[in-house]
Amino acid sequence: MNNFVLSTPTRIRFGEGQVKSLTKEIPSNAKILLTLGGGSVKKNGILNAVINSLEDYKITVFEGIEANPEFETLNRAIELGKTEAVDYVLAVGGGSVLDGSKLIAAGIANPTIEPWEIVTSGGRAAKKALPLGTILTLPATGSESNGNAVISRRATGDKLGIASPLFYPQFSILDPTYTYTLNDRQVANGVVDAFVHTMEQYLTYPVNAKIQDRFAEGILSTLIEEGPKALQEPDNYDVRANLMWSATMALNGLIGAGVPQDWATHMIGHEITAIHGLDHAQTLAIVLPNLMTHQKEAKREKLLQYAERVWALDPCEEESIDRAILLTRDFFERMGTPTSFNGYGIDEPNINQIINKLEEHGMTALGEHGNIDLEASREILEAAR
Amino acid sequence: MNNFVLSTPTRIRFGEGQVKSLTKEIPSNAKILLTLGGGSVKKNGILNAVINSLEDYKITVFEGIEANPEFETLNRAIELGKTEAVDYVLAVGGGSVLDGSKLIAAGIANPTIEPWEIVTSGGRAAKKALPLGTILTLPATGSESNGNAVISRRATGDKLGIASPLFYPQFSILDPTYTYTLNDRQVANGVVDAFVHTMEQYLTYPVNAKIQDRFAEGILSTLIEEGPKALQEPDNYDVRANLMWSATMALNGLIGAGVPQDWATHMIGHEITAIHGLDHAQTLAIVLPNLMTHQKEAKREKLLQYAERVWALDPCEEESIDRAILLTRDFFERMGTPTSFNGYGIDEPNINQIINKLEEHGMTALGEHGNIDLEASREILEAAR
Repeated sequence: MNNFVLSTPTRIRFGEGQVKSLTKEIPSNAKILLTLGGGSVKKNGILNAVINSLEDYKITVFEGIEANPEFETLNRAIELGKTEAVDYVLAVGGGSVLDGSKLIAAGIANPTIEPWEIVTSGGRAAKKALPLGTILTLPATGSESNGNAVISRRATGDKLGIASPLFYPQFSILDPTYTYTLNDRQVANGVVDAFVHTMEQYLTYPVNAKIQDRFAEGILSTLIEEGPKALQEPDNYDVRANLMWSATMALNGLIGAGVPQDWATHMIGHEITAIHGLDHAQTLAIVLPNLMTHQKEAKREKLLQYAERVWALDPCEEESIDRAILLTRDFFERMGTPTSFNGYGIDEPNINQIINKLEEHGMTALGEHGNIDLEASREILEAAR
Repeated sequence: MNNFVLSTPTRIRFGEGQVKSLTKEIPSNAKILLTLGGGSVKKNGILNAVINSLEDYKITVFEGIEANPEFETLNRAIELGKTEAVDYVLAVGGGSVLDGSKLIAAGIANPTIEPWEIVTSGGRAAKKALPLGTILTLPATGSESNGNAVISRRATGDKLGIASPLFYPQFSILDPTYTYTLNDRQVANGVVDAFVHTMEQYLTYPVNAKIQDRFAEGILSTLIEEGPKALQEPDNYDVRANLMWSATMALNGLIGAGVPQDWATHMIGHEITAIHGLDHAQTLAIVLPNLMTHQKEAKREKLLQYAERVWALDPCEEESIDRAILLTRDFFERMGTPTSFNGYGIDEPNINQIINKLEEHGMTALGEHGNIDLEASREILEAAR
């Protein structure tokens, strides 16, 4: 096991009706900036429940944080927060709203620092941040329990990660009933995203970190069992609860503590989203199975372990690795997430451009061994046609 | 899955050499009360390493916190801390030193409250507490990552639990090399303790909490694989690391979140320690296998799951439950921890007195169903002769 530092300070309030405990979490004299995405929180009743719980609080609402949260939008929220002198940020939504609200909380608290500087510094320029609480409506990114965010700026073509201990939510409310109204594509994207987050931290090479391995395998098995059920039984509370908790556990630092990590699938996937406009999770489904095949030798030991423990295959049989990769592909497909460009109607993926962008972004030695160079990325993408 | 609130704010610094990072965790102007148990931290070099790391700090040393930390001892530490006007507590030792230091940190910070009142109020009387850091030398109790402690007062025959969010360590250093010098009995006790902690939160009835179940099973499997190895290869770093991390994960709230819990084995075991003076873990090894047999019907579904997932037995075969219980018993025995009174040379256990004490302490409806009454406890103890 490698050395690690692990901090998971966010208090989780999990389960139906937890929104009623908002008043226990937010000081009664707080001036709240309530940050929202589009209209779904109005339609499904969450916003009403939140407003009712906080009837004695002073609230300023900012809505319109989009998927892949846009810097210019977040900057407007920061200006509004300063004008209204808010001292607490409450984010209600999915990963994009939560990510964007981390920058908002930092931007308001550091009025002398240009918000863009917080982004370009990777978060380090922020010397403080307003306290942040979140109510999660789309389990996928783990943003509800970590100090990370990804911010986009379309004008300059940037998509940058920020991270700071200051960005951890103080609390996060996870109410599975708020996920009943997600459509199939959102459900599938969340499940695939959480699955690949887990694989990026698990499918590398063994370092004898038994707890981390077992926990990762537990998350993978749960996503495989519960993901398809969520599509068939959207109102099944336990299924939704298990998926929601899986997604948080997949990216709160726990399973990645003390182990090597990969993240090549994410890096290649980001460029596919930029060029072909596919959803983040769709790009992961395209890349991962082909990357697994390409890296069969480098990942051999963990692939055998994955085959045995997650898919109950005989690890002594050579073909169990291929079979496990096929079953992974099949799982994504059953979730309604194709695993090739072709599956999304892209007959001619712009592989040259994807490779150029990877080069431009310095992504020339990806993976836990740094052995996925541009040629390897090209081969993976060619196999994904 | 049941609703839950989960908070794990303690920052973990895991791995060899982490003691060097003490200066990152403790403010440079802190006046530290360094709390210790007996002489082992001097012999094995830990104390020197700590003192060297903190050479620029003002440190007051208090040593002599015993197993099952004694209130009168802790009270002396509180007096010393007040006299020296310390503002930080650093505990170096096993669960007893850490537990005791939680009361010390609370007692010093609340000079107008009688320390005994903090104990009798279950911790609620404490309005604040000094910041606490810990360096763990004996993985077992999980105290390094929770807000709980058990305090004894021999003069009055009390052994009381206290808990508060104020008692969470700010950081805990877990360096597996500090566990190399533990003797076999300490190793065995730690492994059995962590195993039973896990079972108390796992072996109840199913509530479709798949992540919690998988994580618990992962901890159990790891303890079964690594426990005996730690006895055979005391200097095997990975084995020690896996055991250390297992013990923390067993009792930091994670696997118990949203599931029913039992704790009957602990309650009965406490009385055995009080009357027969056995180590805490030894009493757990005596009670658990016999409680499993006694509660075979009430715990049937989880016993089948345990048999299948932890011991790879066929859950369709009726005898798999008995076989799983036998394997559990055998595991404890292989760790050198007998599973009967007789194994400790106690030919005539004082079962009447144990039952009287359970009654006196109100332990008349134990277990996740409250169905373990005094008669059931008696039957379990009789079976454990």
